[in-house]
Amino acid sequence: MNRPKVGVIMGSMSDWSTMQKACQILDELEVPYEKQVVSAHRTPDEMFRYAEEASKKGICVIIAGAGGAAHLPGMVASKTILPVIGVPIKSSTLNGIDSLLSIVQMPAGVPVATVAIGDAGASNAGLLAAQILAITDEDLQRRYQERREMIRERVVKDSELV
Amino acid sequence: MNRPKVGVIMGSMSDWSTMQKACQILDELEVPYEKQVVSAHRTPDEMFRYAEEASKKGICVIIAGAGGAAHLPGMVASKTILPVIGVPIKSSTLNGIDSLLSIVQMPAGVPVATVAIGDAGASNAGLLAAQILAITDEDLQRRYQERREMIRERVVKDSELV
Amino acid sequence: MNRPKVGVIMGSMSDWSTMQKACQILDELEVPYEKQVVSAHRTPDEMFRYAEEASKKGICVIIAGAGGAAHLPGMVASKTILPVIGVPIKSSTLNGIDSLLSIVQMPAGVPVATVAIGDAGASNAGLLAAQILAITDEDLQRRYQERREMIRERVVKDSELV
Amino acid sequence: MNRPKVGVIMGSMSDWSTMQKACQILDELEVPYEKQVVSAHRTPDEMFRYAEEASKKGICVIIAGAGGAAHLPGMVASKTILPVIGVPIKSSTLNGIDSLLSIVQMPAGVPVATVAIGDAGASNAGLLAAQILAITDEDLQRRYQERREMIRERVVKDSELV
Amino acid sequence: MNRPKVGVIMGSMSDWSTMQKACQILDELEVPYEKQVVSAHRTPDEMFRYAEEASKKGICVIIAGAGGAAHLPGMVASKTILPVIGVPIKSSTLNGIDSLLSIVQMPAGVPVATVAIGDAGASNAGLLAAQILAITDEDLQRRYQERREMIRERVVKDSELV
Amino acid sequence: MNRPKVGVIMGSMSDWSTMQKACQILDELEVPYEKQVVSAHRTPDEMFRYAEEASKKGICVIIAGAGGAAHLPGMVASKTILPVIGVPIKSSTLNGIDSLLSIVQMPAGVPVATVAIGDAGASNAGLLAAQILAITDEDLQRRYQERREMIRERVVKDSELV
Amino acid sequence: MNRPKVGVIMGSMSDWSTMQKACQILDELEVPYEKQVVSAHRTPDEMFRYAEEASKKGICVIIAGAGGAAHLPGMVASKTILPVIGVPIKSSTLNGIDSLLSIVQMPAGVPVATVAIGDAGASNAGLLAAQILAITDEDLQRRYQERREMIRERVVKDSELV
Amino acid sequence: MNRPKVGVIMGSMSDWSTMQKACQILDELEVPYEKQVVSAHRTPDEMFRYAEEASKKGICVIIAGAGGAAHLPGMVASKTILPVIGVPIKSSTLNGIDSLLSIVQMPAGVPVATVAIGDAGASNAGLLAAQILAITDEDLQRRYQERREMIRERVVKDSELV
Repeated sequence: MNRPKVGVIMGSMSDWSTMQKACQILDELEVPYEKQVVSAHRTPDEMFRYAEEASKKGICVIIAGAGGAAHLPGMVASKTILPVIGVPIKSSTLNGIDSLLSIVQMPAGVPVATVAIGDAGASNAGLLAAQILAITDEDLQRRYQERREMIRERVVKDSELV
Repeated sequence: MNRPKVGVIMGSMSDWSTMQKACQILDELEVPYEKQVVSAHRTPDEMFRYAEEASKKGICVIIAGAGGAAHLPGMVASKTILPVIGVPIKSSTLNGIDSLLSIVQMPAGVPVATVAIGDAGASNAGLLAAQILAITDEDLQRRYQERREMIRERVVKDSELV
Repeated sequence: MNRPKVGVIMGSMSDWSTMQKACQILDELEVPYEKQVVSAHRTPDEMFRYAEEASKKGICVIIAGAGGAAHLPGMVASKTILPVIGVPIKSSTLNGIDSLLSIVQMPAGVPVATVAIGDAGASNAGLLAAQILAITDEDLQRRYQERREMIRERVVKDSELV
Repeated sequence: MNRPKVGVIMGSMSDWSTMQKACQILDELEVPYEKQVVSAHRTPDEMFRYAEEASKKGICVIIAGAGGAAHLPGMVASKTILPVIGVPIKSSTLNGIDSLLSIVQMPAGVPVATVAIGDAGASNAGLLAAQILAITDEDLQRRYQERREMIRERVVKDSELV
Repeated sequence: MNRPKVGVIMGSMSDWSTMQKACQILDELEVPYEKQVVSAHRTPDEMFRYAEEASKKGICVIIAGAGGAAHLPGMVASKTILPVIGVPIKSSTLNGIDSLLSIVQMPAGVPVATVAIGDAGASNAGLLAAQILAITDEDLQRRYQERREMIRERVVKDSELV
Repeated sequence: MNRPKVGVIMGSMSDWSTMQKACQILDELEVPYEKQVVSAHRTPDEMFRYAEEASKKGICVIIAGAGGAAHLPGMVASKTILPVIGVPIKSSTLNGIDSLLSIVQMPAGVPVATVAIGDAGASNAGLLAAQILAITDEDLQRRYQERREMIRERVVKDSELV
Repeated sequence: MNRPKVGVIMGSMSDWSTMQKACQILDELEVPYEKQVVSAHRTPDEMFRYAEEASKKGICVIIAGAGGAAHLPGMVASKTILPVIGVPIKSSTLNGIDSLLSIVQMPAGVPVATVAIGDAGASNAGLLAAQILAITDEDLQRRYQERREMIRERVVKDSELV
Repeated sequence: MNRPKVGVIMGSMSDWSTMQKACQILDELEVPYEKQVVSAHRTPDEMFRYAEEASKKGICVIIAGAGGAAHLPGMVASKTILPVIGVPIKSSTLNGIDSLLSIVQMPAGVPVATVAIGDAGASNAGLLAAQILAITDEDLQRRYQERREMIRERVVKDSELV
């Protein structure tokens, strides 16, 4: 496979069931990626190293998923100038509203591109990474366009079932 | 000035005081952009036309600000495959929590890269657009890096004042 | 059956389990309707076409259900002057509070008649459509009045069971 | 003036600054209306009487504004089969989220057509009443359509100012 | 049994599983009560009649449970000067936060004595009614005091189990 | 003046501007009361003593106002079997939603009769205390009834002003 | 076992399934502790006695878990100058947001060191107590450091599994 | 002055107006401290260095204030085993509920001792740090005890003013 262009990271193993939705989209659109568990709180040095080295490894976009007091996306964003997409994981107590606010409410200076809470957000993180890469990749643009058209047709078909 | 690479749109004139923060960042980082009032609800056809033509005009990233039941970013995103950054405007009644949820909670299939509510979010939208363009623009990378370093130094100086 | 007077639309197949409550009420009150899956985000052009043509087809009221960043009711409302009733679908992460705010917090100029989150809201959307049509339809007024009386009697009976 | 077709009621004098937005719209669109302070909690009998007699007086749509534990729209709706539009007034402590939930979360059986919190909602209540009446009034349809077009043009003009 | 001193009412049959907690407390403390389903929205006239006649029947305190846009306690309170205790029923979509705000946020002039959402609240409604009656009933004071002491002892015992 | 029947307490001096609304109502209805600053957190022993002695002093109902993590009403309620009315003071950061939840969400066993956040709640606390005392005081019933009628008339007059 | 240095208390038996997470951490780090059910509302005198005597018994840190209108941590803190750690128990109706606000929003003067809602919070309460004791206990510092390192390694290993 | 035992840090200059309340308490109780602006997002390396070196410099407790997506307390806590007290700064858009959740909802493994939002929280952070140090410092215990007694007396005096 090609050198990864997207780095998918998550705060813990339990986030994988959500974050795999991002990877499925990247597989589907043939965007090369790598994936890793990196915890802001439990492996802070590894997290900083990851953020510092991502660009050198050829990574262009980072997707980071985390829940609760979700610091991973914002802290990675503070250590790289690559665009970072944050996925708020649905938390066990507050349904992910804590994850969402911890990721999206970044102070001026360090943006995180935040998507929806949970599975829909993880899928959209994959799509957003692809959109970013597609700006300068016409083949990917075409594949993205085709996928969108396919989904459009599926909705039209669904309408016959209700 | 060069052909615009970023399209900055907003739902109404009253959003301009917030959205100009995005434009200030783009000016500072020398990223060419255009700006326009386009309302999802009051000018839906103009909005669709804008979204359809943006790519042809050379726009690479769209920044869309809206408040309340904020449909502009998501609807533009449904009509283009360019990355769309959504800025939740602080609303008069619910402080922008309605704007935030209306923008970030997109269903799987159509992502909007959401930033913080209000001015901080608008600034970060400008920075995020620049980060996306910088992936393939080394000069912009350098300018972005310098700006970040400058801010770092300002914080260090601030510390002497408390 | 008669030409439909109410158009029931929903953002995805999964909304049907909720939206059928609206259809059951319309069946019960003998109000002719049509139903369709139309997605604001996945089939935006079909959605605009639906909104533009509804009036010409004889539709008098539109009921639109959607969840999460629920843009369907508001966008349809921006493209027609028919009254649009919005049903916030209970979302998987935030219990529908996102759906509710995305539908009800419309800016001045384009109203959406919003009902409760979920099944109760869908039923009430059917009733509200009937109330609107009943203004100029005395037979429907009578059927509505009878249904209400029947429910009143059921509550009175319930009281003997506690 | 013609016999009123819309009844605008509100829970207290202090709601008038919001509810007059509804009246301004009705004036603008030449829809005849009456207005009154009727309190669910302080004048319950007058409220019931109002609801019972509205239809006989020729009222076709009721607009009811209330704040806090806002019971006026729902209680009026329980006593008439006319469509009732509820306007959540911005409350002094909770910004109107209490008003919104007290109005919109009606149980199955008695719908209230709820609009946004505050001034925007009141304007939209006026517009929604007009849309409902316009179903069978072509002149009103035309006036509504013209108003909408005028607003569209204003947005297009606004765009030259940013 | 003695003439009822407490009236326990609820908006629908489905509230009974919660409201029976209030009745269990009243049974336990030997406070005579009656119970009934009375719906603010579906049987408004019966509700008004209930509120008007309660005092004449010898009822001293009313306990009213309701969910969602919970108007029953507040509307009963507007029609009687007896103290009304409101129990917010846990709602299916918003966990009862809508019920709570609809009951507790009454405007100045008409109080509702609100207790916690759900079963704990219903139990406490029974206890509060007993406390109110106990002001002038020394036997009930003693029974209440004994029950409280018994609970205190149970907690002390519990401590040996952890 | 007569021996106080209502004890009005509050967590700090700053709560007085709210709590005086309760006292105004009690003055108006000629209900004798005493008032005191008693802090759950800063004077816990005085608070316990107050709760223990209230009944012996002839107090029949306690009104307790507190803000933030508002423990005063619930802790007083744990030390007396008199009915305790809790007034959530509007807090400086969270608008009193913290005060409300800290007061109303009492566990089964110890009720607090909670009223609305802020001034309206304080007024209603005074009214609720009067309603409780009026159960066995016909003169107070009459005064309460007259006050309510007076307010009803004021609303009817207000209606001529809009 | 050594004389307890940490006192773990909880409002009811049902809190034990959460609070045992704190005890597991203390066991693991060999910090001697005692545990007890003490209810702010049902055993207020025992609670005050516990708080008054804790220091004399050699307790250095108190961990207190409670749910709903959670008064235990704050009231204990008002009666001792030992640091008190508050654990918000996940409540049945509002997911613990009521517990969190009732514990964390303490007025100036009486702090409670609040941790996350539920199990994660209880574990962290144990860790925080250990951190406080470790300031003057080098052996405990070492054990804490080793535990942290062990967790770091586990995350690194997890990364190979995704 | 003595070597600092408490390190007070904050994410930006604008947090100083809040964080000085913590310093005032430490001054009052004669606890030596140092203070610094350290930003998680704008000076991440300085933040890590601060956290790593704090213990060696003799710091025993860290107080960290931050707003919005407040990552400073949690990230510092991930890099030291000293107890970290987090102060949620009142944010401009969401009143500090975002700051609170970003600080308190830490995952199991890395606790942050969270206090109330805003000024009250900052004061309490100073008090909590003093309580922690007082465990092994009898002079500080005495000063703390005296301060508490003084506050108790002030409340008792306040009571004469209402």
